[in-house]
Amino acid sequence: MTKAYAAQSADTDLEPFSFTRRDLRADDVAIDILYCGVCHSDLHHARNHAGYTLYPTVPGHEIVGRVTAVGSEVSKFQPGDMVGVGCYVDSCQKCKPCHAGEEPYCVEYATPTYGFMDRHDGMPSYGGYSENIIVSDKFTVRIPEGMDAKSAAPLLCAGITTYSPLRHWKVGPGHKVAVVGLGGLGHMGLKFAKAMGAEVTLFTRSPDKEQEARRLGADHVVLSTDEAQMAAAANSFDYILDTVPNAHDVNPYVATLAWNGTLILLGLLGAIDPPLHNVPLMMGRKSVASSNVGGIAETQEMLDFCAANGITCDVEMIDIQDINAAYERMEKGDVHYRFVIDNASLRKS
Amino acid sequence: MTKAYAAQSADTDLEPFSFTRRDLRADDVAIDILYCGVCHSDLHHARNHAGYTLYPTVPGHEIVGRVTAVGSEVSKFQPGDMVGVGCYVDSCQKCKPCHAGEEPYCVEYATPTYGFMDRHDGMPSYGGYSENIIVSDKFTVRIPEGMDAKSAAPLLCAGITTYSPLRHWKVGPGHKVAVVGLGGLGHMGLKFAKAMGAEVTLFTRSPDKEQEARRLGADHVVLSTDEAQMAAAANSFDYILDTVPNAHDVNPYVATLAWNGTLILLGLLGAIDPPLHNVPLMMGRKSVASSNVGGIAETQEMLDFCAANGITCDVEMIDIQDINAAYERMEKGDVHYRFVIDNASLRKS
Repeated sequence: MTKAYAAQSADTDLEPFSFTRRDLRADDVAIDILYCGVCHSDLHHARNHAGYTLYPTVPGHEIVGRVTAVGSEVSKFQPGDMVGVGCYVDSCQKCKPCHAGEEPYCVEYATPTYGFMDRHDGMPSYGGYSENIIVSDKFTVRIPEGMDAKSAAPLLCAGITTYSPLRHWKVGPGHKVAVVGLGGLGHMGLKFAKAMGAEVTLFTRSPDKEQEARRLGADHVVLSTDEAQMAAAANSFDYILDTVPNAHDVNPYVATLAWNGTLILLGLLGAIDPPLHNVPLMMGRKSVASSNVGGIAETQEMLDFCAANGITCDVEMIDIQDINAAYERMEKGDVHYRFVIDNASLRKS
Repeated sequence: MTKAYAAQSADTDLEPFSFTRRDLRADDVAIDILYCGVCHSDLHHARNHAGYTLYPTVPGHEIVGRVTAVGSEVSKFQPGDMVGVGCYVDSCQKCKPCHAGEEPYCVEYATPTYGFMDRHDGMPSYGGYSENIIVSDKFTVRIPEGMDAKSAAPLLCAGITTYSPLRHWKVGPGHKVAVVGLGGLGHMGLKFAKAMGAEVTLFTRSPDKEQEARRLGADHVVLSTDEAQMAAAANSFDYILDTVPNAHDVNPYVATLAWNGTLILLGLLGAIDPPLHNVPLMMGRKSVASSNVGGIAETQEMLDFCAANGITCDVEMIDIQDINAAYERMEKGDVHYRFVIDNASLRKS
């Protein structure tokens, strides 16, 4: 049996739960989980914000651990390897996005790491708030030698979610990039945009975040509640990564896009409320886009980029027994900048 | 005195009006207007839909006529030349978009052909529902030799509004392009996308438009009121030109965008209502954009492209005395596909 923590309903705390992982398939990697990051999506899912959660659900898709066994056809990994698993654990492997190595955009929908059904045996997928996981080698990445395993965990979602759009839109020197929000995604967005050579600005509602933002890579900080600062930022940015995880007014950020600029919404906003206005888009040929995490190849590239540039996630370690309190703090934005579960604590429960 | 038709208020019909054009400046071209297209923006403006109309207003920004005189520094045009004037008649000439030849995106705002103030003398700009106009040579384009002047008029707005985004997003062979709506813009979008080598689809609410759509360049027609047809079109189009001039639900069109596809809103929707949802954007890394008309250099390129490819606008000629009835028909979408005023009719009033 695998020990885990699960939500049994939208209204109850996460509690101890146990289940059995599948037997190893030929392409599988068995991983003892060391650490698992806590993503806002976990909270959305545990509390059924999107309306399709199947209970019980074991969240967690920022997983780092050690390989303990491999299937008969696996040659890329061997027991003892330090590896990671992110948001998806399977996809059709034959559509255009899959062939392009962009599995999250699989036209048959990639299989999320938790909360959905395995494509082969129809069993529920359970995530990283657990002792171990069994995943196809095609969805396993290698943690670079020497990288701190705790702070690597959130790279598997918060990292690749911000890295992927910056690469897709070819951000580099000469670009002005802004990041909205200084949470798990936002602080990684600052680090990546800076490391890629852009001039980087943070939008925040908190005047006390300026020093932290500069430490994390921001060249400028704009207080989004200050009308004069917002007006001064008009028509400035080639790209904005908006990491706010809930519905909010995006129009003030559109106003700060430069001619031909793109606002990239990384949160699960649902209906954009208050509504987006299109005339400001028209007057600057601006775009509003949204992007998913990158594919497995790009996730490996991101990890290697982090190793080469000394980038990791800033984390607060918790025991699994603290998860419900951590969710409460996340909802208030009170985390610097990602909670990471020490999965050894599962043995206590 | 220049005879014209003007709106005196949002609630009254357009009526005869007269005013005096400015004296020729060194860079000006004086034009006797032969034809002026009737754009949905004219109606929006006459009826004060955006709330900033200054009355009286003389609409009209799809102007074709003959040069009668030129200022002392004008060398590109001479009396007798057939020329055109579109949506803008001036800009700052020194900002980045102006230097890039994309004057409509001037950071100090380009001066619209009607309804705003001249940048130099502060006098109101009056449009093409009039006998003549005086415009800087920088905002005057040449109507290609042999092109029918009547059907050239709407190219100055409906034409360049659809041509410009297709060029900006580099549409060509291998792309699937859809056009929403078969009005003045829509029918030009079909012609241009087809001429540029794309596979072209029309979205329409009218089952009886299929034959016409195919004549105009559509390879496929999707009835947007038919759920099965819309479902079959899911994840199909690299680009959609949405030419609907009023607020409408854009989410069903987002669903038909292919991975990495872009929905380009060409109408003045204002607030997007019902609201745009961002999760479908995220799952396909899709974008919603909006674009303005192209600059003067691109407008000339578009006219030359039309001449080279035998493209013109399909027009219904009217006298200026018919303008109020024409507005009523436009509101019902009852025009094939653009009304054009025979400005000789102004001499009757």
